[in-house]
Amino acid sequence: MSHPSFIAVDWGTSGFRLWVLDACGKTLAETDGPFGMSNLEPSDFGRVLEENLNELGIGQDVPAIICGMAGAAQGWCEAPYLTAPTRLDKLGAGAIRVSDASREVRILPGVKQQSPANVMRGEETQIAGLLHLVPDFRGIVCLPGTHTKWVRVADGAIIEFETCMTGEQFAFFSRASVLSHSMVNHGWSDSAFEAAIRLAADDPAALPRRLFAIRAGMLVGKQTSAQARATLSGLLIGQELMSVRQYWTDQTVTLIGASTLCELYLTALGFMGASGRVTEVSEITLSGLTAAYQHQRRCFSS
Amino acid sequence: MSHPSFIAVDWGTSGFRLWVLDACGKTLAETDGPFGMSNLEPSDFGRVLEENLNELGIGQDVPAIICGMAGAAQGWCEAPYLTAPTRLDKLGAGAIRVSDASREVRILPGVKQQSPANVMRGEETQIAGLLHLVPDFRGIVCLPGTHTKWVRVADGAIIEFETCMTGEQFAFFSRASVLSHSMVNHGWSDSAFEAAIRLAADDPAALPRRLFAIRAGMLVGKQTSAQARATLSGLLIGQELMSVRQYWTDQTVTLIGASTLCELYLTALGFMGASGRVTEVSEITLSGLTAAYQHQRRCFSS
Repeated sequence: MSHPSFIAVDWGTSGFRLWVLDACGKTLAETDGPFGMSNLEPSDFGRVLEENLNELGIGQDVPAIICGMAGAAQGWCEAPYLTAPTRLDKLGAGAIRVSDASREVRILPGVKQQSPANVMRGEETQIAGLLHLVPDFRGIVCLPGTHTKWVRVADGAIIEFETCMTGEQFAFFSRASVLSHSMVNHGWSDSAFEAAIRLAADDPAALPRRLFAIRAGMLVGKQTSAQARATLSGLLIGQELMSVRQYWTDQTVTLIGASTLCELYLTALGFMGASGRVTEVSEITLSGLTAAYQHQRRCFSS
Repeated sequence: MSHPSFIAVDWGTSGFRLWVLDACGKTLAETDGPFGMSNLEPSDFGRVLEENLNELGIGQDVPAIICGMAGAAQGWCEAPYLTAPTRLDKLGAGAIRVSDASREVRILPGVKQQSPANVMRGEETQIAGLLHLVPDFRGIVCLPGTHTKWVRVADGAIIEFETCMTGEQFAFFSRASVLSHSMVNHGWSDSAFEAAIRLAADDPAALPRRLFAIRAGMLVGKQTSAQARATLSGLLIGQELMSVRQYWTDQTVTLIGASTLCELYLTALGFMGASGRVTEVSEITLSGLTAAYQHQRRCFSS
């Protein structure tokens, strides 16, 4: 293969994804694993990175650029936040050098917002990637996941953003709460999902009393496990959409995230009379990391 | 002490409480422990009961009456549900006999509601206790806890009810979610609680985007751990109240539950222009178990 030029890593709460790239930005190798911040101590990050690069046969002369929770206070090395509104071409310039790494490693900053208080780490790099691919992009970006972000983008900058813990709530309710007894298999029901979206749209404040009804519907009725799971998903995504109406009303939302999850958001937006389009998340992430690396490359020794 | 006549047990999801009573209903001994359904296999219940009674020196000739999750499908022995609307003087008559117990043990039925689907196990006995103490009671009963119940009571009967998983959600968010990093101590702020109640009342649909703000408020602002904990509690209780407005509007709510938690609900109701009164939960529970036992005593052999 051609000579590796740099390593790009999206290092999140629950997992990490790594690409090895040549000087033209072509991917030479890639890997991923469940080595997220929540599973690591700060002292583990360097070892995990080197183990993965050893397996790929990458020498220590190749520098790495990282985005995401590796830069959090509980991560590898705390990277500062840019403050929204903020242009994203500053992202590479804001990277910090990790001192206890056995190669050149830099972590990109996150973005914070003072009022209402909010933070992101990783999504800013994906939005930078979108802007790298579509420089004049302006509009609303939704990044569904553990902590779904809604971001208003204009003039190459993040203007404002919101966070909803929808993914983390779905994981809790479906795996650890009393509702988990009603979701013993991984089935799905489109009609139950759509009905739940409509319920949430009609009366978003009713969510607290609708959640337990998922369990009760199985105990006293004929609800299936597939219906229960889809109802939970629809109620949570529906309630999220209602809480961020000001973001998507009269907009076409650009969705960046896992394709199955993005399709659910697309369906939900459609039922609420809005529209969206799904982008390819790997391409966007890699584009953002590459743009930040290129902007910052003069700081790397190799 | 005078001769034990019967044993009353409130056996819930997370713990159990047991009283030994004489023929006049006077408490001779009592105990409790973390032996809830979620910590036990069905085959454990009999052993746990006997171990606790052995420690109190109670012979096997004394019968026991039990309410709560011991009667759930995952409990000791499944007890049927009464169907709301239902009078509660039927509670004792609906008790089932446990076949694999080394003494006479009966478990009281729960109550189900077909539409909207709902279930309770244990709270019906507390409401029966309230009706035993105040036979002409009519109005709204709120039983705050892991799964808070809102119950409309009239003519000695449960007319209808709702369930909100507020306690389970608070436990998840404060102990296991990303918000737990902002609640490392157990402090409290009355003003943060009140502000959160007002936020929930003003815009109950906004909850999804307000939760993560608790974490962000600590990362980018000056929020304390005490403020974070009280804000989470206020948002969840406030959102619950907004979802069951039809229960408390123009009513005085009778609260049955742990006193600290009942006081929070009382405060929240007050901020929403409603009123409530707190009852003594042990007295109510014991009254319900005693009434059910006395109604059913002809079925016991001793």
